[in-house]
Amino acid sequence: MSKFVNDPKQFVPEMLKGIALANPDALRYVPAYNLIMRADAPSDDKVSIIQGSGSGHEPAHVMVVGKGMLDAACPGDVFSAPPVDYVYETTKLLKSEKGVLYLVNNYTGDRLAFEMAAEMAEADGIRVRTLVIDDDVAVSGSTHTVGRRGVAGNFFVMKAVGAAAECGDDLDALVALGARVNGVTRTMGVALSSCTPPAKGAPLFQIAADEMEVGIGIHGEPGRRRAKQVTANEVVSLLLDAVVSDLPFQAGDRVALMINGLGGTPIGELYVLYGAAHEQLASQGIQVARSYVGEYCTSLEMAGASLTLVRLDDELMDLLLAPAEIPYRVF
Amino acid sequence: MSKFVNDPKQFVPEMLKGIALANPDALRYVPAYNLIMRADAPSDDKVSIIQGSGSGHEPAHVMVVGKGMLDAACPGDVFSAPPVDYVYETTKLLKSEKGVLYLVNNYTGDRLAFEMAAEMAEADGIRVRTLVIDDDVAVSGSTHTVGRRGVAGNFFVMKAVGAAAECGDDLDALVALGARVNGVTRTMGVALSSCTPPAKGAPLFQIAADEMEVGIGIHGEPGRRRAKQVTANEVVSLLLDAVVSDLPFQAGDRVALMINGLGGTPIGELYVLYGAAHEQLASQGIQVARSYVGEYCTSLEMAGASLTLVRLDDELMDLLLAPAEIPYRVF
Repeated sequence: MSKFVNDPKQFVPEMLKGIALANPDALRYVPAYNLIMRADAPSDDKVSIIQGSGSGHEPAHVMVVGKGMLDAACPGDVFSAPPVDYVYETTKLLKSEKGVLYLVNNYTGDRLAFEMAAEMAEADGIRVRTLVIDDDVAVSGSTHTVGRRGVAGNFFVMKAVGAAAECGDDLDALVALGARVNGVTRTMGVALSSCTPPAKGAPLFQIAADEMEVGIGIHGEPGRRRAKQVTANEVVSLLLDAVVSDLPFQAGDRVALMINGLGGTPIGELYVLYGAAHEQLASQGIQVARSYVGEYCTSLEMAGASLTLVRLDDELMDLLLAPAEIPYRVF
Repeated sequence: MSKFVNDPKQFVPEMLKGIALANPDALRYVPAYNLIMRADAPSDDKVSIIQGSGSGHEPAHVMVVGKGMLDAACPGDVFSAPPVDYVYETTKLLKSEKGVLYLVNNYTGDRLAFEMAAEMAEADGIRVRTLVIDDDVAVSGSTHTVGRRGVAGNFFVMKAVGAAAECGDDLDALVALGARVNGVTRTMGVALSSCTPPAKGAPLFQIAADEMEVGIGIHGEPGRRRAKQVTANEVVSLLLDAVVSDLPFQAGDRVALMINGLGGTPIGELYVLYGAAHEQLASQGIQVARSYVGEYCTSLEMAGASLTLVRLDDELMDLLLAPAEIPYRVF
């Protein structure tokens, strides 16, 4: 299987234990609920922000817990929604006078878990609101989803509401802000290989060495079409065609551009894509004012990348520039 | 080939262009010499620090250029030393009254390029000193090397001398500091797969799906032995056995621990390795006081990881904690 694992069924707990051991001061780990939370959370002066999803997308979301981003993440197993009780127990531990905000990528399993947990928490008197993220333009529904999928663009929602929450914004304001960011964020990805969940022990799907899946989902769900591989410039063109036309982004727009690696693609290739995207956008009169290149929302060791555009305004730019203290540090 | 490339021969320049476009304020790119330099360098108040190597190891070293780390990097093609004239021209552009420090990982090609460039620069009246890094305990010589190889442990040397240079330390002091850090830094890696340089278009070496190369070099050079894959805990044991016994690290030592991904290994697996290493070290009485988990010195999309230990003292810890502003940001 060519993986660093012990018992594949223990992959997620062992990963979470490693994250906790590497960040003993900043993070608290509650093994019973796969829970990684800020050591200094919750605070009644601040809305608590919780994101859950399947594992296998690291650094999303367990490595994005910290001041200015998430207060907690409670992942499920690889590519599986967290159990309802994980979300419920996490919510109780993160209870705040100002309320709890759930950020949920739009997958049926995740939505159900968070909806049921919200009902249980509200019965306990905890005020909860949920923001669903659906930035992926590739398909309007798929194996795991009714409506569009939520993918790497969720980082912009997390960062914006995380920064605003630090400034004391209330729950309704954060929901409105997050919805506004989601509304100007669009993503599409492409895969050059499959990936192998540890407990499955076999590739999620089959793809020939010279093929690519255009519009891939982050759990290997089919995209728009299977095609022969093309050059980096052509990959960028087809991603931009889909993403730009969807909002649509227009000449004069100032944007953030993210090239997100899906796990198995070298950083150098991500920068080749970035350079092509930056120049193709410039030729359309769209100015990249902030850039993100690296791994944000991965699919284990899948070779591939996604491209996200966010239409910026001054308020959103300030929120993106606000400090964040997360374990996914560099050096 | 399952890569995002255009003309494979243009892979490195296109990557560098992308890095420059993503960091227009912080970095300056000089295409003629593959040169990425701090936009505000050089300064006569500070030693200029230059690192060169082959490409394909990103973020090393072109993404580690910035305040508190490198002043410039001038990489060669993938897994190839930079040409002498790239190093020489880079040196002239980074000339400082306080001198120029070369950081060179111990490979024959890199050493030759930097030695010849140093002679040329000194003939121009530029004061140059060179620090060779050789942290890899796996082999005492290999395909590309006389003596030990320099691998991911070079990040600790870069960080320490980079921080000290910002404080105004002179060239001789930086060389002494760098040698001291190199002297307490030990690394060994393991590969689960090969990788494919774009211009070669074929894997560097062959390895069966159930095998691993213990002590792999970052250019795919052979290590100590080829073996059947084992569990993550056992991988950590064999890496620690080699690394700990080499210095040797001892009960009571306070260390930095780096788990470096070689490019194709998911972050989650790196944290599984980290957790195991942290606990195995604790059981030997060795305390991890600072941790690094992620991609630092890669081999394109190779699946694998290396483990680095650094014996810390108060001075070195302060240098590691000093701020650095490099493009390899998170969010």
